[in-house]
Amino acid sequence: MGTLRKINLAEKLSSFEEAFGPRIIGRYNGDKIQVTKVRGSFIWHAHQDTDDLILVLDGKLVVEARDGAVELGPGELVVVPAGLEHRTRAEPEAHILVVEPAGTLNTGDSGEVAAPEVEI
Amino acid sequence: MGTLRKINLAEKLSSFEEAFGPRIIGRYNGDKIQVTKVRGSFIWHAHQDTDDLILVLDGKLVVEARDGAVELGPGELVVVPAGLEHRTRAEPEAHILVVEPAGTLNTGDSGEVAAPEVEI
Repeated sequence: MGTLRKINLAEKLSSFEEAFGPRIIGRYNGDKIQVTKVRGSFIWHAHQDTDDLILVLDGKLVVEARDGAVELGPGELVVVPAGLEHRTRAEPEAHILVVEPAGTLNTGDSGEVAAPEVEI
Repeated sequence: MGTLRKINLAEKLSSFEEAFGPRIIGRYNGDKIQVTKVRGSFIWHAHQDTDDLILVLDGKLVVEARDGAVELGPGELVVVPAGLEHRTRAEPEAHILVVEPAGTLNTGDSGEVAAPEVEI
């Protein structure tokens, strides 16, 4: 049944620089718990089969949908509903926690090449 | 498919005082996203069918298992594996984010009365 392991988010984030390259830092049921650095704009995409849980850890994050946007600071979260086309954006940079099922492509249904699933 | 709604964790936490009374602040797939205030020690319990994702937002949280404990500060998380008997503890208080499937009892398999599922 495993045991308890403390995961420090800032420490994990300090171990890489790449933007839009999610790193898996833990597992929860069938989901991957990830940290990501957002710099500039990501591509428009949707996840047809899953919601996306996004919590801002550092910086300001804009999550845009076609019909409106939310701007989030540290300690604010948003759930992007399954099927909703969206795009994340940050100037200059935001750090976020993302929870979604293992196997979910960060580029969703856009047809763009997805980032590999990297565990740190 | 819904839309985007910003959720501010500190604002949600400031709306109640009760310890060990989780408040549901959002939904992610079949899961409830909750904030909880921990003050003193909770009871020993396990969740046989689900992991528990716990992120500390404020204060110091100790999560004890029978074979060891972790102490977490803000920005640190732990996944309590399904089936692992555990107990949370904080002196004087910690604020935490907890994600687990809807219907999961906060008292697990302990036989103690569970807190109601309250959405705020």
